[in-house]
Amino acid sequence: MTQQMLTKIVLATRPTGRPRPDNFRLEQAVLPDVPQGGLLLRTLYLSLDPYMRGRMDDRPSYVPPIAIDAVMGGETVSEVIASDRADYSVGDIVLAPSGWSSHAAWVGDSLRKLDPSIAPITTGLGVLGMPGFTAYAGLNIIGKPKPGETLVVAAASGPVGSLVGQLAHQAGLRTVGIAGGLEKCRYLIDELGFDAAIDHRNDNLRGQLASACPKGIDIYFENVGGAVWQAVRPLLNRFARVPVCGLIAQYNGGGPADDVSHTMRAILTKSLTVRGFINYEFAADHYADFLTSVSKAIADGKIRYREDIVEGLAAAPEAFIGMLDGKNFGKLLVKVS
Amino acid sequence: MTQQMLTKIVLATRPTGRPRPDNFRLEQAVLPDVPQGGLLLRTLYLSLDPYMRGRMDDRPSYVPPIAIDAVMGGETVSEVIASDRADYSVGDIVLAPSGWSSHAAWVGDSLRKLDPSIAPITTGLGVLGMPGFTAYAGLNIIGKPKPGETLVVAAASGPVGSLVGQLAHQAGLRTVGIAGGLEKCRYLIDELGFDAAIDHRNDNLRGQLASACPKGIDIYFENVGGAVWQAVRPLLNRFARVPVCGLIAQYNGGGPADDVSHTMRAILTKSLTVRGFINYEFAADHYADFLTSVSKAIADGKIRYREDIVEGLAAAPEAFIGMLDGKNFGKLLVKVS
Repeated sequence: MTQQMLTKIVLATRPTGRPRPDNFRLEQAVLPDVPQGGLLLRTLYLSLDPYMRGRMDDRPSYVPPIAIDAVMGGETVSEVIASDRADYSVGDIVLAPSGWSSHAAWVGDSLRKLDPSIAPITTGLGVLGMPGFTAYAGLNIIGKPKPGETLVVAAASGPVGSLVGQLAHQAGLRTVGIAGGLEKCRYLIDELGFDAAIDHRNDNLRGQLASACPKGIDIYFENVGGAVWQAVRPLLNRFARVPVCGLIAQYNGGGPADDVSHTMRAILTKSLTVRGFINYEFAADHYADFLTSVSKAIADGKIRYREDIVEGLAAAPEAFIGMLDGKNFGKLLVKVS
Repeated sequence: MTQQMLTKIVLATRPTGRPRPDNFRLEQAVLPDVPQGGLLLRTLYLSLDPYMRGRMDDRPSYVPPIAIDAVMGGETVSEVIASDRADYSVGDIVLAPSGWSSHAAWVGDSLRKLDPSIAPITTGLGVLGMPGFTAYAGLNIIGKPKPGETLVVAAASGPVGSLVGQLAHQAGLRTVGIAGGLEKCRYLIDELGFDAAIDHRNDNLRGQLASACPKGIDIYFENVGGAVWQAVRPLLNRFARVPVCGLIAQYNGGGPADDVSHTMRAILTKSLTVRGFINYEFAADHYADFLTSVSKAIADGKIRYREDIVEGLAAAPEAFIGMLDGKNFGKLLVKVS
């Protein structure tokens, strides 16, 4: 009898700067039995997210590093293929931290079940999942938007930025997105209702931002850092709020030098609030409200989202590397099986 | 009949880096009459404060620059010597924005009267005035201290830092002060109840801070910036709060280079709150509570303060320049008359 196998991608070596394909290694292993009191899961979709880059480094962060030869971590939409729990049945669709793997055994806390009749299951990894809640919490709890204010968000066509911009627009803010390339910029304005869109690949980002924000910037939702932060900083208004959600431009190192004294001075002289956050800090108090309101907005056609789906686990490393360069357009997912 | 004259110090030239005596000029002018519906004031004490350095530069800040040949701005304790208002009498002692001047005419809003029976009138420029309220508001509203946490404050023997440390100590926090020189460090521990004091002139500030803060830092009250911020940053705990009140180490320019990416990364990975503020943002809601509670604590001997008083308006420039180098010990005041 042939043993059933699973496929996974492990961290082969740690990257220096931009990751390369040889930092990853595809492996096969014997599919485990369903664990006692647990579940055996088959991965349908794997989410690729910028924070994973930090986990490839061996330095302290809000998530521990991935060990060499260990499977790359990540959230998935998975199907229960064997269950030793009364509360899950074969065929149930769940959100699971299965990582970059075709299958995973699960013992532990309850996993959130997804109801395909409410929204496509892939949204559990995007607009109705961690990226969506990140946008919702950062904007509302830290950003504290007020009608008539101006919001700027970078990586604006991505899963976080696109929801930030739509929610801000609907809250009555002037909404300005920064994205890479004309196609993404057109999408922001034509599909998502942004008031202005700026291609960060153009020269004179700062001048374009100033034109797009005639009354300055009240909320800057920080996803990227680096040169964009330098361009935004002089335009921030007094009492502006800066939720710091990600720094994708810095993850691979490099970027233009900029002494911290300029930023500290802006924080002091403009009474800025600069606040880093990880979405789960706010989950206990706000996740249920988020799911209710954003699910309804999607059902009503008031919130749009876009997915960029690549086929097959073997394509994950290249897709991930491309995402760090801004090559994806929408929430990046891997269709695993 | 001889005209009565006033003496004032004007901004002669803008400094480059550290101010020099020739950036200031002592002038005499005819003492004006009491204005219609106003007051004529004689300055008793002038407060010298670090924020004044920013006003000497011609660049945007939270306070507009002082014009060349204009009197240097500043808060004073003054005596009413002539009054055309029913609500002020000759002999009243008031807080007034008279600037670096022996006299000033005042027309406008009410000035706060000081009652010498409650506390020495000089405290209106220090522990019971703007510096005291800055400490109180930054610590309580932004710092949100909790018993058992660790607070670090630099410029700890100054008027803001010394109150921050005492209030934090009394709120049950481990309190660590940074100051310049052994005498100031001893004062922090022996007189103000700090748990530890570090001389920033020693080598290895970061190592000493790490020893003094075995459980990391939960609140860093930022008065100085520069090298101290670099030493503090790696020790900040998750969810640490950083009220940014001043950046005296940066006011004269220079300082060690430190790319902003390190700070942004710390903000993100440790979910820091970095919040600049100017005390008057919080005055409407909190000033009365501050005056009540800190006045009582001083009367009860629970809060101490220290003043560094120089004699005569002509000594103000040198005292101010010295303050930017950390030469004062306690709230720096000029006894004008």
